[in-house]
Amino acid sequence: MTLEIRNVAIQDTYGERFQHCWGCGPKNDLGLHLKTYPSVEGTSCISRIKVDQQYTGGVPANLFGGMIAVIFDCHGTASAAWFAHHQKGLELTAETVIGRFITAHLEVDYLSPTPIDDEIVVTSTLEELGERKAIVSMEMSVAGKVRAKAKMVAVAVKDNM
Amino acid sequence: MTLEIRNVAIQDTYGERFQHCWGCGPKNDLGLHLKTYPSVEGTSCISRIKVDQQYTGGVPANLFGGMIAVIFDCHGTASAAWFAHHQKGLELTAETVIGRFITAHLEVDYLSPTPIDDEIVVTSTLEELGERKAIVSMEMSVAGKVRAKAKMVAVAVKDNM
Repeated sequence: MTLEIRNVAIQDTYGERFQHCWGCGPKNDLGLHLKTYPSVEGTSCISRIKVDQQYTGGVPANLFGGMIAVIFDCHGTASAAWFAHHQKGLELTAETVIGRFITAHLEVDYLSPTPIDDEIVVTSTLEELGERKAIVSMEMSVAGKVRAKAKMVAVAVKDNM
Repeated sequence: MTLEIRNVAIQDTYGERFQHCWGCGPKNDLGLHLKTYPSVEGTSCISRIKVDQQYTGGVPANLFGGMIAVIFDCHGTASAAWFAHHQKGLELTAETVIGRFITAHLEVDYLSPTPIDDEIVVTSTLEELGERKAIVSMEMSVAGKVRAKAKMVAVAVKDNM
């Protein structure tokens, strides 16, 4: 998939108080540092990541299903924040006018084994947008083949929870 | 919740070829080593785990939602293997007569923030059992309060996928 993308990762626009996530927080020294970029036209988001060999599932050649959910979780909340602001003509900044988005519901369909030794590509589109809620659809591919699909309901929060 | 539990963790009964999971594999040196125990009467399973401070969500006080899915994923597949064998009067051994279970579908409802500095307790029960498929319901509590619920559809595999 070749998407023309913007050059600032959504996670890098979060306020410092929201940047501690193990999956995608720039301020978490021990984390995965997933980065999610909006497409130029703003209607989809994309993350690309290659994870260490330790994040295997039961068998060493495949990515762990829990780690697939981790990647969807970070990609989905970032996408939700982007879509919610973009649809209202707002910029994503450290002040997060609408809020940073957190997961209320995540569901993942595991379609085929995901090889661990190749780049993982995750894309998302917006399904539905409410005042403080976004429903996001996602797809994970490796080597051009869809390995898993996910749906997230995310809600906006302004404070430290 | 005080459950009388058996003294062998389900993950320790898997064959060596299935023990590499980052979340619960005894053979993964860098993993979390989640352990799941069946109750004495065999109708529920329980895992208890305390995770490192690095596995925070966006804000430092709360557990990362992706890590909540990780814990449900390992707890659920272990529970599915246990329930499937136990209901047919079979022992779980390295040969896994029916198979090791992998996730086909996982859905998580995040009900309230999960503090990261306390023990996490996950329980499961069997909802439905087919020939090679199990549906498992799960609940995660910290400090006596339910923080998240999950449902998994797991399927049995015999080989290395």
